[in-house]
Amino acid sequence: MRHRVVIIGAGFGGLNAAKALRNADADVTVIDRRNFHLFQPLLYQVATGALSPGEIAAPIRGVLSKNKNTRVLLGDMSAIDAAAKTLLLADGAIIPYDTLIVATGSTDNYFAHPEWAALAPGLKGIENATEIRRRILMAFENAERATNAEQRKAYLTFVVVGGGATGTEMSGAISEIARDIVVHDFRSINTREAEVIMIEGSPRVLNSFPEDLSKSAEDQLHKLGVKTRLHSMVTAIDGNGVSVKCGDQEDHISAKTVIWAAGVKASPLGKLLGEQTGAEVDKSGRVIVEPDLTLKGHPDILVIGDLANFPHQTGKPLPGVAQVGIQMGDYAAKLIKARLKQKTVKPFRYWDKGNMATIGKAAAVAQIGPLHFGGLFAWLLWLFIHLMYLVGFSNRLTVLIEWFYNYVTMNRGARLITGDAQHISPEKVIS
Amino acid sequence: MRHRVVIIGAGFGGLNAAKALRNADADVTVIDRRNFHLFQPLLYQVATGALSPGEIAAPIRGVLSKNKNTRVLLGDMSAIDAAAKTLLLADGAIIPYDTLIVATGSTDNYFAHPEWAALAPGLKGIENATEIRRRILMAFENAERATNAEQRKAYLTFVVVGGGATGTEMSGAISEIARDIVVHDFRSINTREAEVIMIEGSPRVLNSFPEDLSKSAEDQLHKLGVKTRLHSMVTAIDGNGVSVKCGDQEDHISAKTVIWAAGVKASPLGKLLGEQTGAEVDKSGRVIVEPDLTLKGHPDILVIGDLANFPHQTGKPLPGVAQVGIQMGDYAAKLIKARLKQKTVKPFRYWDKGNMATIGKAAAVAQIGPLHFGGLFAWLLWLFIHLMYLVGFSNRLTVLIEWFYNYVTMNRGARLITGDAQHISPEKVIS
Repeated sequence: MRHRVVIIGAGFGGLNAAKALRNADADVTVIDRRNFHLFQPLLYQVATGALSPGEIAAPIRGVLSKNKNTRVLLGDMSAIDAAAKTLLLADGAIIPYDTLIVATGSTDNYFAHPEWAALAPGLKGIENATEIRRRILMAFENAERATNAEQRKAYLTFVVVGGGATGTEMSGAISEIARDIVVHDFRSINTREAEVIMIEGSPRVLNSFPEDLSKSAEDQLHKLGVKTRLHSMVTAIDGNGVSVKCGDQEDHISAKTVIWAAGVKASPLGKLLGEQTGAEVDKSGRVIVEPDLTLKGHPDILVIGDLANFPHQTGKPLPGVAQVGIQMGDYAAKLIKARLKQKTVKPFRYWDKGNMATIGKAAAVAQIGPLHFGGLFAWLLWLFIHLMYLVGFSNRLTVLIEWFYNYVTMNRGARLITGDAQHISPEKVIS
Repeated sequence: MRHRVVIIGAGFGGLNAAKALRNADADVTVIDRRNFHLFQPLLYQVATGALSPGEIAAPIRGVLSKNKNTRVLLGDMSAIDAAAKTLLLADGAIIPYDTLIVATGSTDNYFAHPEWAALAPGLKGIENATEIRRRILMAFENAERATNAEQRKAYLTFVVVGGGATGTEMSGAISEIARDIVVHDFRSINTREAEVIMIEGSPRVLNSFPEDLSKSAEDQLHKLGVKTRLHSMVTAIDGNGVSVKCGDQEDHISAKTVIWAAGVKASPLGKLLGEQTGAEVDKSGRVIVEPDLTLKGHPDILVIGDLANFPHQTGKPLPGVAQVGIQMGDYAAKLIKARLKQKTVKPFRYWDKGNMATIGKAAAVAQIGPLHFGGLFAWLLWLFIHLMYLVGFSNRLTVLIEWFYNYVTMNRGARLITGDAQHISPEKVIS
């Protein structure tokens, strides 16, 4: 029987591993809860009505249809038996493996407040993105219908919790919607009066970037009208706004729309793996991997992407970005192919191609090795790189054209409010 | 105070009326439950994964943003007081009008079986379309996982109830998915073995078309692998299939996916209008209108589009197609503008530009006056006309490109299974 490789999760890591195993002498099974791979770096564009879900997602079966050695299963893993080398899926199916690649990524981290998830959705997954879009658009709708100034102001105030890349993208994009995109759409409100407030616990935005780029990002955010509150922690969230603490000062921001971008934690599978294999799990739930991405004592199990804590290069875990997942996926495939030929490979090494974050039209920061860019050039760089990846992964040139067109015209055709009927009606008008 | 025109519904009729009132000396209010206008004729392409929702929908506010005399309200009408000339919205708001245009269209008609709605969704609205897409794609997923031949066959059988334009489009598109689009995506099933069965009560498909075109459509459907069952009525639907009666013969088709395209009825507002104004309502719930689209005794209320029964031209109601809505919307605006200038206009006359239905790639039928076309030419005609409308309404050239690209490559990038988590997992594997 051929060697059986099972890959759980078809994000950047899992999908790249599967692709790279195309010509391997192995039967590959890819298991994911969803039938599509999501281009997560552009998810904020779905949340802000610039792109449609279908434009940043590709059916996994379609991507892998030419990998004749690969089958795709829609399923949810519920248990692993590392001794028997089998997985149990939620639907009762038992999947045996010879080599297992776990690449189930990360999810929003609400720390000690899981109840905030409903009040402040995070940007994980298509459904969350369309829900955020619905909330942003409904806030303008409700502001238009509001019968008093206080209520109107609360609807026109948007709080983004977290000042990392996602928080920066969301803040900038919401500000652009209010200032440029819907500005002629309403008759009772001036959408330019909308306030976007970004709350960040650390002393600077984008704190994984060099200090000069944080400064540049902050300036660009302010130019777009985003207010930043640094050194600030959210202490409470309810349907009417957030309480924010800065030093010993605490105040309340009335805001009907709150978006969570304050951090992620590893998928719960990390803990499960730790229990089963004795592998060490860090406090974010990531599994600490060996230099070759396997688990200690379990060379047949690899953990890659956001779920992996790889401390062997910089002493710290590698960042949770697409590039790490992609390179780990490629490495995992290379390792498996080498083993099948009784060969060995060098330990994994991450090649940091750079770091970038976008803020808005013609506004971004980028770091490539020692080079730092801010503003238009950084944005063009960001645009180019993301477009190239997107076109490469889906072969859909139209996204490129649509996107370019949207940026030039400030048109956002995808700003549809969809979902369950009870969500659609505006809130009762309180007169 | 300026004359106040209130338009309920932003489908083809309502939206065209609003657009045409741009320069009228009147304040216009457009009320819709949704924030977008839907290009309904292409909704089946969303249901079959060829286009994304955002590609066939345009935000109403965006479409009307340059109409400075027009405001858009997101709201649901719950009552009309024709004597006081006011509307009551579900959220409690009271909207006064001088002239009212009611254009709330139609909805699926399950006749005496409202319980079938959940078992056999119809193609009305974005959420229904994505639900149908989910069911079609999940059927293939479940077939791939099925553990016995009988179960597999039921998942690979698709029943479309109704052989009108929507039924024809859906049947053809599902057959194309199975035969061309997902054929390389699965490992345990041959998707070419899928059966698409169209059930039609009358003696022929597309029975509103001339007989020779019905024949041509049937041939083209058969060529695409669709089985047609004419003279047949559905007598029962459950989670495992449908019972079909033909003459005195009744049998059961095992099918996990059933789609409803067997007819529409007018929006419930028709009945409400009838009660309030004494206007006659036909058995489909449509309001019988005067030659100028107003209600008898209520010249300040116009009913247009699918909700109107206009018998004055052919003796029968005009068909429920986009063209009728568009022309009625234009007429309503013309009438109002004339009245504001104390002028009169001639009664409404529908100019029938033709009738067409698409079946698949290079397969369609078209009637333009005395000319009848079938096959490639009809399809090119259909393609051209729909593209022109679509581009005109949304200014989104990318849809044209995407669409063209999809047809050429048989790529269907938008085949995402989205929705609530409980829908996503495949059904339990019964072993």
